[in-house]
This record gives sequence, structure tokens and C-alpha cells, in this order.
Amino acid sequence: MTKKGRVFSGARPTGRQHLGNYLGAIQNYVALQKEYDCIYCIVDVHALTTLETTRDIKNNTYEMALDWLAAGIDPRESIVFIQSHVPQVMELFTILSMVTPLGKLTDLPTFKEKVRMQPNNVNLGLVGYPVLMTADIVLYKADLVPVGIDQASHVEFARETVRSFNFRYNTSVLKEPDIKLTEVPKVIGTDGQQKMSKSLNNHIELALTPEETEKVVMTMVTDPARKRRSDPGNPDVCNVFSMHKVFSSPEEVAMINLECRRAGIGCVDCKKLFAKNLNAHLAPFRERRAALAQNPDDILDVLRDGERRARVIAEQTMAEVRDAIGLP
Amino acid sequence: MTKKGRVFSGARPTGRQHLGNYLGAIQNYVALQKEYDCIYCIVDVHALTTLETTRDIKNNTYEMALDWLAAGIDPRESIVFIQSHVPQVMELFTILSMVTPLGKLTDLPTFKEKVRMQPNNVNLGLVGYPVLMTADIVLYKADLVPVGIDQASHVEFARETVRSFNFRYNTSVLKEPDIKLTEVPKVIGTDGQQKMSKSLNNHIELALTPEETEKVVMTMVTDPARKRRSDPGNPDVCNVFSMHKVFSSPEEVAMINLECRRAGIGCVDCKKLFAKNLNAHLAPFRERRAALAQNPDDILDVLRDGERRARVIAEQTMAEVRDAIGLP
Repeated sequence: MTKKGRVFSGARPTGRQHLGNYLGAIQNYVALQKEYDCIYCIVDVHALTTLETTRDIKNNTYEMALDWLAAGIDPRESIVFIQSHVPQVMELFTILSMVTPLGKLTDLPTFKEKVRMQPNNVNLGLVGYPVLMTADIVLYKADLVPVGIDQASHVEFARETVRSFNFRYNTSVLKEPDIKLTEVPKVIGTDGQQKMSKSLNNHIELALTPEETEKVVMTMVTDPARKRRSDPGNPDVCNVFSMHKVFSSPEEVAMINLECRRAGIGCVDCKKLFAKNLNAHLAPFRERRAALAQNPDDILDVLRDGERRARVIAEQTMAEVRDAIGLP
Repeated sequence: MTKKGRVFSGARPTGRQHLGNYLGAIQNYVALQKEYDCIYCIVDVHALTTLETTRDIKNNTYEMALDWLAAGIDPRESIVFIQSHVPQVMELFTILSMVTPLGKLTDLPTFKEKVRMQPNNVNLGLVGYPVLMTADIVLYKADLVPVGIDQASHVEFARETVRSFNFRYNTSVLKEPDIKLTEVPKVIGTDGQQKMSKSLNNHIELALTPEETEKVVMTMVTDPARKRRSDPGNPDVCNVFSMHKVFSSPEEVAMINLECRRAGIGCVDCKKLFAKNLNAHLAPFRERRAALAQNPDDILDVLRDGERRARVIAEQTMAEVRDAIGLP
């Protein structure tokens, strides 16, 4: 079947994936494969701009790849690879940096935010981050980049950089990527307040055992106004209820929506039901993950094969770029 | 014979070389080959940070290589190659940019000077320039970088960046280069005032014919106070006299020093003598250049062979760098 175009997306190697990653990105990655030629990249080089230690970067990369494949990213359909394995991206980054005004980079709200986050490590790579992201996308001549509305400015930056390059060298070899606006559900962590994130330790890992999952789910913060079992609750402000809406049946959701409000069901039972449904949902994933983990070399083979296929595209683009500039 | 270490030096592809390049760099490049393993790089990527057009970059690269080889840079002894042909340098640049504080780069006097030179093109590559220069040097684990005192700060920057990287990743894979302080004579152009430079069009190309050379030499500005043939001149302020000191015999230098001061020799005859001696000095160079130019493919072969040898060193360094970081 002819596909509708090429999709590129990258994610930092954060190790074992959690429900936030799953609902926010991985499920969409899997779905896109039907209609698009997809390139999914684990961006280890980007991680160097902010990581305090790189001790775990290798292991985190493999664990993430394992989760991706177990979740249904199909390496026969999609290219899955590690950013640093195709160093042409750094070649293109260097070349694009010469058509990118420094002032434009330092004015970006995302840069200012990063400066606030790590004021003592404002390195050149941090300011060049959007240019490396642009190189990621345009090296593979991606047609579409799936992003939530809050990330759309990154793709707009890439489009502007492509136009700068093409204008500067009077060429059309680089392709402006289009934004594929994607609904990215905001998944709240077990604290019931902040976005689910490994660094906040409010996450639920996909690869936990059912027992571990239930244990974590039992720590989830519910409606803070419901102090006792006999108090009525408000599902509208309860993160467990949000999760039910994703993982439980319509009947169960309707039941909780009713019973919680009249204290007919307690938080403990409500969470147990969510844990049960989540575990049922993740059972096939966990089975595939366990099978894949038996043969770590298979994961390496997938990543090496992805590298080979990515390099073919990358080298073709770079040959065109060098030629457009007129490099010797 | 065992050599004393590895020397790295790079120069921008400025096309046909002139007397300033010859006396300021090329002669030294040739001399260093006896004692050191030398790597001489035509840095076309650096040129992208400032060039207004890249139309001539390919031709300028070949013409410069031709001059280097004709002048005695021996590709059996030294590695001569084009920077962009070994893209590992851009990979290392990207990685080093993540251990280089932005503020350190924007504080450099050389950056501030560049901002003054091209205020409308302060691109990210321009601010990253010293980092790319560092990557050039350390990719090849150079022991020594021959520089004049005014360029020593660049090597000092490279040393600091190496220390940052090695400290950050608790390693010693990158080598701090040492400065090889070199007397770089300031060659004044035909205007008698500014440093000889192609962009000021006050230069004398090495590859001119003897007739063309004499014609350019006749335009050289001498002692401006000597208005008439009958006026005595002052060799101490005359750029033609400086050139005599390099290219004429001690007897001729002594003669001019005497006769100019008493109007015994006129500027026309003095210049003719310089042109004659310069042409005699350059005759073997021009003969070799003509022979090399007959077979342009030989130049390409030299540059490709240099690339191959440079890549072996570069890939080894990058493997160590990736390993030190812990990249997957």
C-alpha cells in the first residue's frame, strides 16, 4: 500500500516508559504506521545538552527501544534508530548553524525556560538545540512531524531554517516539514497534580508486574476533598477517574461517576479496579516485552538495521546539501 | 626517522596564494615536515561562517591545494585534506558544544570583532567558531599547533575545552594541544600600509607569470615622502625594501639601503630588481605548479588520500569519545 508520506519523530532516551509516554506518544507512533512511512529516533545527542550524568544513557536507550517495540512499533514498517548512530545529523546541524541567527535562538521562550532550569550550564549545545532538532527532521526529508500544539513552534522554527538555507544557497534541496497537529493528552502523575514524569517520580512504568502496578496505583492521589470513605467524592477532579476513562469500560466509567459522588464506592476499590483494567490492557505488551528481553541482540539488530536504512536517506540528503553549497 | 609529534594546522580556502600566505604560513608548513608528522587542512566549513557566496569555494580549495603542493608540502610526508571530507569534525563540534558555555564564547574578543565585521550575520556558527577549531585540532590528537602570538588564545581555548570535556566525562581521551609559537612575519601589501590580503586587493599572487609579477610590483607604494627621482628615500619605511630583505642578496640589500638614501637608485629600478629576484625565487615553484596543474586528477587523488588517512585517526578518536560519554 502506498503511504501518505514520511513522518519523523524523536524522543530522548528516558529508559523504561511510563503511562504518560504511552498515552502521549507511543500509542500515536504505533497508529501512524498504518498510513505513513515512519522514522522514530531515540535522540541521545539531544540528551547531552541537559543530562547531569550520561552513566545510564546506554541502558535507557535500550529499555526505551524495548518498550517501543513491545508496544507495537514495527521495525519492518518503521525505521527505529539511535540519533548518534547516524552522525550526518551533526554535520547538517553544523551547516545549518551557519544560517541561523544567534539572536533568534536566544530569544526563543524554550531557550529562556532552559536557562531558568539550568542557569549554571548554559552551553552552546543548549542554545543550538532547535537547530539540531531541525537537522533531525530535514535530514530525513520528513513530510510531517506529529506534535502537540505546544510543540508546534519547534516545527515552525525548522520550516524557517529550511527557508533560510534554501534561500542562502539558492536551492530547494531541503524540505519544509509540515506540522501534524496531534492531540497529546496531558497525563497527570500519581501525585494528582503534575504531569507524569520520571524525574518527578510520579509515574507508572509500563513494564511493572501487575502486583507492582497495583501497589503504585494504590498511592495515587484522588479527590483531596474526600477525606473519609463515607464522604462523597468528585470524579471531575480525580486523576484516577481520568485514567478509568482511558482504560475501563464505558459501563465501569458510568458506574464510578455515579457511585463516587454518593460514596457508593471507596477510593481503594476504585483504584483496584483501575489497576486490574490497566494490567489487563498491558498484558499483551508485557508478554511481548518479556519475549523481546530474552534476546537483547535482537533489539541491537533492529537498531542497527534502522541505522542502515536511516543512513541511506541521510547520506543522500547530505550529498545534495554539500552540492547545493558547492563544497569541494 | 621518528618525528617529534603531530602538528595540525588549518587554513581557509582563499584560492591562489599570495606572498603573505607564503611567508606567513606556507614556508613554515614546508619546514615543519622535517621534524613533525603534519596534518594540513583546508577548512572549508569554517569559511561558511563568513562567506557571502560559496560560488568559488570549490575552485579556491583546489587552487590553494595546488599552491601548497607546488610550494613543497609533500603528501607522502604530510596529510593534506579538506575539512568537510572528514565529517567527524562536525560530530565532535556538536559534542564539544555541549561542554562549552555560551557566555565564554560571546565574551571572546575575536567574536566581538566578528560581530563588528558582519553585524547583520551573527549566526550560531560564528559564535561556535572556536569550538569547531578545537574539534579540528583535537580530532587528530595534535601535539602542537603552530601559531603566531596573536592566535595563541585560540589554542588556549582548545586546551580549556579539552579539560572541560575530560572533566565532564571523567576521561582522558582528548589531548590538550600545545602551542608552537611561530614567528609570523607581517607581510604588508602593495599599498604599503595594510597587511597583504586578497580581499584588499593589495596582494602579489605566487602563480602570476614573471611579467604579471613585475607589473604588480611596479604598483607598490614606496616611501611616500620620496616624491621625485632626485629626492632621497628612506628604506626603513619602504615596503619594497622589506621585501628585498627577504628575496634579495645581502649585497643588494646593502646597496639599496645606501643608494636609496642618497637618491642613487630610483624606485622604478629598485622595484625591477625586487621583481627579478622574486621571479627567480618562485621559478621552481611555478615550474612544479604548472606540472601539477596539467593533471588536476592528481590533486584530487592527493586530497582523497589525505581524507582516507585523516579519517582513520578521526574515527579512532570518535570511537573513544563516544565510549567515554557512554553513548549507545
